[in-house]
Amino acid sequence: MTTEQLDRALAGEPRWVARLLTLLEGAWSPEVAAAMQRLTPLAGRAQVIGVTGPPGVGKSTLVDRLVGELRNELSRIAVLAFDPSSPFTGGALLGDRIRMMGRGDDPGVFIRSVANRAHAGGLSRTASRLVTTLDAVGYDAILVETVGAGQSEVDVAGLADTVVVVLAPGFGDEIQALKAGMLETADLFVVNKADLPGADRVVASLHDATDGAMPHAVSAATGQGVAELTRAIRGHHACDRAALDARRAAHRRALLEEAVREQLWAHFRATHAEALDGAMAQVTAGATDPESAAAALLEEARNNG
Amino acid sequence: MTTEQLDRALAGEPRWVARLLTLLEGAWSPEVAAAMQRLTPLAGRAQVIGVTGPPGVGKSTLVDRLVGELRNELSRIAVLAFDPSSPFTGGALLGDRIRMMGRGDDPGVFIRSVANRAHAGGLSRTASRLVTTLDAVGYDAILVETVGAGQSEVDVAGLADTVVVVLAPGFGDEIQALKAGMLETADLFVVNKADLPGADRVVASLHDATDGAMPHAVSAATGQGVAELTRAIRGHHACDRAALDARRAAHRRALLEEAVREQLWAHFRATHAEALDGAMAQVTAGATDPESAAAALLEEARNNG
Repeated sequence: MTTEQLDRALAGEPRWVARLLTLLEGAWSPEVAAAMQRLTPLAGRAQVIGVTGPPGVGKSTLVDRLVGELRNELSRIAVLAFDPSSPFTGGALLGDRIRMMGRGDDPGVFIRSVANRAHAGGLSRTASRLVTTLDAVGYDAILVETVGAGQSEVDVAGLADTVVVVLAPGFGDEIQALKAGMLETADLFVVNKADLPGADRVVASLHDATDGAMPHAVSAATGQGVAELTRAIRGHHACDRAALDARRAAHRRALLEEAVREQLWAHFRATHAEALDGAMAQVTAGATDPESAAAALLEEARNNG
Repeated sequence: MTTEQLDRALAGEPRWVARLLTLLEGAWSPEVAAAMQRLTPLAGRAQVIGVTGPPGVGKSTLVDRLVGELRNELSRIAVLAFDPSSPFTGGALLGDRIRMMGRGDDPGVFIRSVANRAHAGGLSRTASRLVTTLDAVGYDAILVETVGAGQSEVDVAGLADTVVVVLAPGFGDEIQALKAGMLETADLFVVNKADLPGADRVVASLHDATDGAMPHAVSAATGQGVAELTRAIRGHHACDRAALDARRAAHRRALLEEAVREQLWAHFRATHAEALDGAMAQVTAGATDPESAAAALLEEARNNG
C-alpha cells in the first residue's frame, strides 16, 4: 500500500479502508509494520463494544439494532463480525443482512466479516490490528461480534472496552458451561428473544450464576429494550476512564507478550531447523520427554550462538 | 525425590506414585527433569481414555462404571480427574465417591484429582507428565476426566488415545456450541441418562451434527449399556496401531513445540527484563503497536547478544 493510499484510508474512504484491512489480515510484513506504526498513535478515541454469546441467540440481529440506535448519536459505526466456522468470509451474506435492515446505503456504517481461519497472525492479533485501524480512521464505535466458543470470547474480552454477553430462552443449560470463561468477562448481560417462553428462566439463571447481575431483556426482532441497552453500553464507556485505561493497557501488554513469544519461536525455528528436527525425532520415539528435549535444545543453541 | 523413592514408585507402590505425581504437578526443575527422563522411555503401553463433556452430564458416575468394567479385563486402572473450577484438589470428594462405589479398597485402582489452577506448567504439559508417569509405573488403562469447556477438551484430545464425549438429555442445545471443538475430537459419543425423557432427541441431534455418528446410549446410574461402551473403547485402541502411533507422535511434537516456546520466553524475560519494560511502556502508551515493538526488541537483543 502506498503512502497516498494509506492517506486515503485515513481520510475515511471506505474503499481504501477495506483494502487496508485486507492487508492487515495477512501475515506480518514491512508493509503491515509501516501501516500499524502510523495508525497506532491515532487510535484510542472509539468505543470498542464486544458482542458475544453461543450460536443461535440472535447476536447478528442485535448488532444490527445496536448500529441503528448508535447512529442516532454517533456519525460513524463499524462492525467486525468474526465467523468461527466458515473458511471464507461471509461478507456477501452479511451484506444481504444489512441491506435488509435498510442500512446498505448509510455511508456512516462500515461492515466487515472476518473468517477465523483466514488470518495468518492469530485471532487476537488480527482483531487488534483491525480494531486499531477502524479507530484510527475515525469510527466512533466499533462493534466486534464473535461466537463465544473456544477462545474467541477471551479475545474479545481483552479487545473490547465493553463486553456484552448475549443469551436467549433455551440456553439456560449453557450458563454453567459458560461460567468458566464468558460470564466473568461480561460487563453487560442481555437475554434476547425476551418475548419468547422461557426468558424469565434464563434471566433468573443468569442472576444466580453471576451473584446478582441484572440482564437486559430485549427483543432484537422487534427492537424492544434495545434503546435502553444502548444507553447502558454508552454509559459503561463514559463512567470510569481510569478503569478503561487500565483495561486497554493490560490488553496491549498481553499483545506485546504474545508477539514476543511468537517472534522468538519463529526466529528459533528458522535458525535451528536441523537441531529441532533431531529433538522432534527423539521425542516422537519416546526416548526423552518434551520438556527435557526443549531444555537440551536451548542449552545447545546458547552454547553455539 | 531420591532414586530409591523413584524406584518404589516405579514398582507401583501407590504412596510413592502419589508423591511422584505431586512433584510432577509442580514447576519444571532438575528433579522433575530427572524423573521424566527416567519415566518416559518406560511409557507407551497403557490405553489413555479421555472422558469429556459439559458439567452435569454424569461424567464422574460414568467413569466409575467404566473403571468397574475395565477391571474385569485389566489389573491396574488409574483415573485422573481435572477440575476446572476448584482452587484446591477435589481429592477428598472424589475419594468419597469411589468409596461409595465400593472401589475404595481395590488396590488395582488409583485415583487422582488435579485442580486446573494448581499446576505451574500449563494444563496440557502437567496432564502429559502425569499420564506418562502412570503409564510408566504400570497402569493398563488411564482414564482422564475433564470438563469440555474452554481449552481442556483440546488438551484431552491430544493426550488421549481414545476420546469419549458425553452428553445427556437437556444438553441438545449445546451441541451446536460444542461443534467448534469437542465434536471433531471425539472417537466415541455417549448419551448418558438414556432412560430419561429427551434422550432420543440428543441422540438424533448428535447424529445430525456429526454426519451420522451413532452415540452409545447408556445409563451410568444403572450400568445399562456400559459393558458395550467399554468393549467399543477397548476395540478403538486395538484396531489401528499405525493411527495410534501417528496420534501419539503428533501430540509429542506439539508438546515439544510448546516447551520450546515457553522456555524461549522465560529465558528472554529473565535476560532482557529492562528492555521489555521499556517496550511495555511504549505499547501501553499507544506510541507503537505491539508487533512492531516486539520486532524492535528482538532485533536489539540480537545485535547486543
